[in-house]
Amino acid sequence: MVGAGMSPFGMFPERDSKDLFTDAFGQMLKSVDKGIDPSDIDCLYVGNFTNDLFVHQSHWGAILSDALGLVPKPATRVEGACASSGLAFREGVFAIASGFYDIVLVGGVEDMSKRTTGEVADGLALAATPYEQRAGFTFPGVFGAIATAYFDRYGASREDLMDVTIKSHNNAPLNPKAQFQMTIGDFMKKKIERARAKGDPIPEWSDEKEFLHDPKANPLVAWPMHVFDCCPISDGAACVLLVAEELANRFTDDALSVIGIGQASGSGLHAADNLTSFEATRCAAEEAYGMAGLGPSDIQIAEVHDCFSIAEILNIEDLGFFKPGHGCEATREGLTSLHGPKPINTSGGLKCKGHPVGATGLAQLYEIWEQLRQQAGERQVPIDNLSIGAAHNLGGTGGTCTFTILERR
Amino acid sequence: MVGAGMSPFGMFPERDSKDLFTDAFGQMLKSVDKGIDPSDIDCLYVGNFTNDLFVHQSHWGAILSDALGLVPKPATRVEGACASSGLAFREGVFAIASGFYDIVLVGGVEDMSKRTTGEVADGLALAATPYEQRAGFTFPGVFGAIATAYFDRYGASREDLMDVTIKSHNNAPLNPKAQFQMTIGDFMKKKIERARAKGDPIPEWSDEKEFLHDPKANPLVAWPMHVFDCCPISDGAACVLLVAEELANRFTDDALSVIGIGQASGSGLHAADNLTSFEATRCAAEEAYGMAGLGPSDIQIAEVHDCFSIAEILNIEDLGFFKPGHGCEATREGLTSLHGPKPINTSGGLKCKGHPVGATGLAQLYEIWEQLRQQAGERQVPIDNLSIGAAHNLGGTGGTCTFTILERR
Repeated sequence: MVGAGMSPFGMFPERDSKDLFTDAFGQMLKSVDKGIDPSDIDCLYVGNFTNDLFVHQSHWGAILSDALGLVPKPATRVEGACASSGLAFREGVFAIASGFYDIVLVGGVEDMSKRTTGEVADGLALAATPYEQRAGFTFPGVFGAIATAYFDRYGASREDLMDVTIKSHNNAPLNPKAQFQMTIGDFMKKKIERARAKGDPIPEWSDEKEFLHDPKANPLVAWPMHVFDCCPISDGAACVLLVAEELANRFTDDALSVIGIGQASGSGLHAADNLTSFEATRCAAEEAYGMAGLGPSDIQIAEVHDCFSIAEILNIEDLGFFKPGHGCEATREGLTSLHGPKPINTSGGLKCKGHPVGATGLAQLYEIWEQLRQQAGERQVPIDNLSIGAAHNLGGTGGTCTFTILERR
Repeated sequence: MVGAGMSPFGMFPERDSKDLFTDAFGQMLKSVDKGIDPSDIDCLYVGNFTNDLFVHQSHWGAILSDALGLVPKPATRVEGACASSGLAFREGVFAIASGFYDIVLVGGVEDMSKRTTGEVADGLALAATPYEQRAGFTFPGVFGAIATAYFDRYGASREDLMDVTIKSHNNAPLNPKAQFQMTIGDFMKKKIERARAKGDPIPEWSDEKEFLHDPKANPLVAWPMHVFDCCPISDGAACVLLVAEELANRFTDDALSVIGIGQASGSGLHAADNLTSFEATRCAAEEAYGMAGLGPSDIQIAEVHDCFSIAEILNIEDLGFFKPGHGCEATREGLTSLHGPKPINTSGGLKCKGHPVGATGLAQLYEIWEQLRQQAGERQVPIDNLSIGAAHNLGGTGGTCTFTILERR
């Protein structure tokens, strides 16, 4: 991996998929230390989930290839719900490993904010299995059920999930591309200022958790998922440049190597023995760890798919970072915070960086790129000899998972 | 390629994507001469274009993986409009060539007939570029414009396109899985019988072309595309089993080798210098011919993407089978008929076999499998030493193309 770029994530009424992708592409070009002539790119993979429905346009491989001036180079769109660009990345790796291509652009993009929240919720539900969708589940409902099962099994509570939310909101303001640039403390101040300006009674919260318990500040979505447990609706794009190992020095003396990459599928909740763990994550991780010859303790930082607060807990357990039932405790103790021994979602995660679904897998890898190359600015983790990071991308209700391990050598 | 299966193509109100894919999968399993244990399959690629819109369900990689009992094996959906499963096939080849996997299932499926014709026309237009779609083009309109340009450039006429239609309808009744089991002569007889039964005046046509000129029998869709120039709305699925070359003998002593495979993208009509040729086809063919060390004259039979009669003419010229402007003459002289020296679309083509868009690329390869292995029954081509066939799959208005050359050794 010799380059990476990412557009800002947020809600951009004036920017469409081509604008967002072109932005990420331009930044990727600049990130290549020794430069790259775009005409040297052999092919393009694009992860995208919802453009058929939300933008009323399919066939984005060809369209983005045209927009970037890459025609007639091959361009392929890959879809696996919210794991679409994790899958696209993997196809890019295969295309090079197969010997067919040497220089491969992999991107992801999603344009969601022009639709109403109801349309987005309905559209995203297409990623669930037919059984879940027809049973009336939307994603907050699914993850609400998962959280309820987790609470029951391990004696956890909403307070535990708040630790995840507070951590994500602590990281995001340090990421200039994140959608939410505010800590929970900032939200509290803002609410108090507004009340003061309106002449309303001034709310009093003793701490962040009391704020998150206040149903006016943090309304219920699908119990126990409240607004601050849920990732937002986002627009954005990200991309990376992959090249054959023997060519890397042509582009940079500081490439990242893909040392492990796993993918697996799952059946969905209707067939799960246990709602508090995703089989697809466990299998994808096993494949990637096996390929890298590493275990969970070797991963120094990771971005994991925290579409909901409870998802981060499940993921850090399924990936083996913490034992089943111990993810909340680890988070409470700060082990996953920016300055902890195992920083998780330093970017702010899907929760605060934003979750333009088809771009997320690559945006995670973009964060690992920034961190491993010591380019993450204010959110740079202070780990000695930082060299190994990983990204975990999940689609649907565990229907698809990719896990990718990168190394800076 | 050691196995291939295909569901019947047609309009099946009682069958959904899972039914169709499971049918094709079951037939593929039976086609493997020495048998295959499905649990040995390493991963699944699925080509699908419209299920987000028409079936209101995405994430078909995971869903089909579950339906076939393949979970937790990786499953990836690929979309490139009507070339979706041509792309999926190529990813399957890469997955094996990369050394990641040995036994890969590649399938394609589409379920279109539960929607109205208007909904389908509108949905398929999402494959065109945004410029074409916003300009009001649907696909019959696009290919009508292309035909008009072709007529102007080469002095051809509707009569020339009728030769393509008549040929396709001659082949299809010999294919038990084709959607239309009738020659043009059969349609004429049926119309006459109906008129007789109703007591209407008995229509008189001197030959097939006079029938096709009759606007009551063959109404205009978008000039010069009439109903019999257009492929139908179809449901169907197809799949193949790919294995690493060194494993092929475990499954059959009569495998087909993928000796050339090309893919390219195009910008669409708004950017084309010439409407009578698709750049993506020419580039994909060049790549595949180069890989195989072969030229157009070495291809003994081919399935080409005849979504409209004019498309077959463009394709057989772009692939180098005939010189630009000579496709009509070749068709008129019978060179592309079942008993000609270069049989094209022996299956009946998209026009008569049907065009469940995401399944088409693999259904073409299924036909080449049947022909090269001398299993095509009544439509088996009588070519001595038949060993090399090819499939050409086109998406959108030339936005994506794959060209695949298979050899029986």
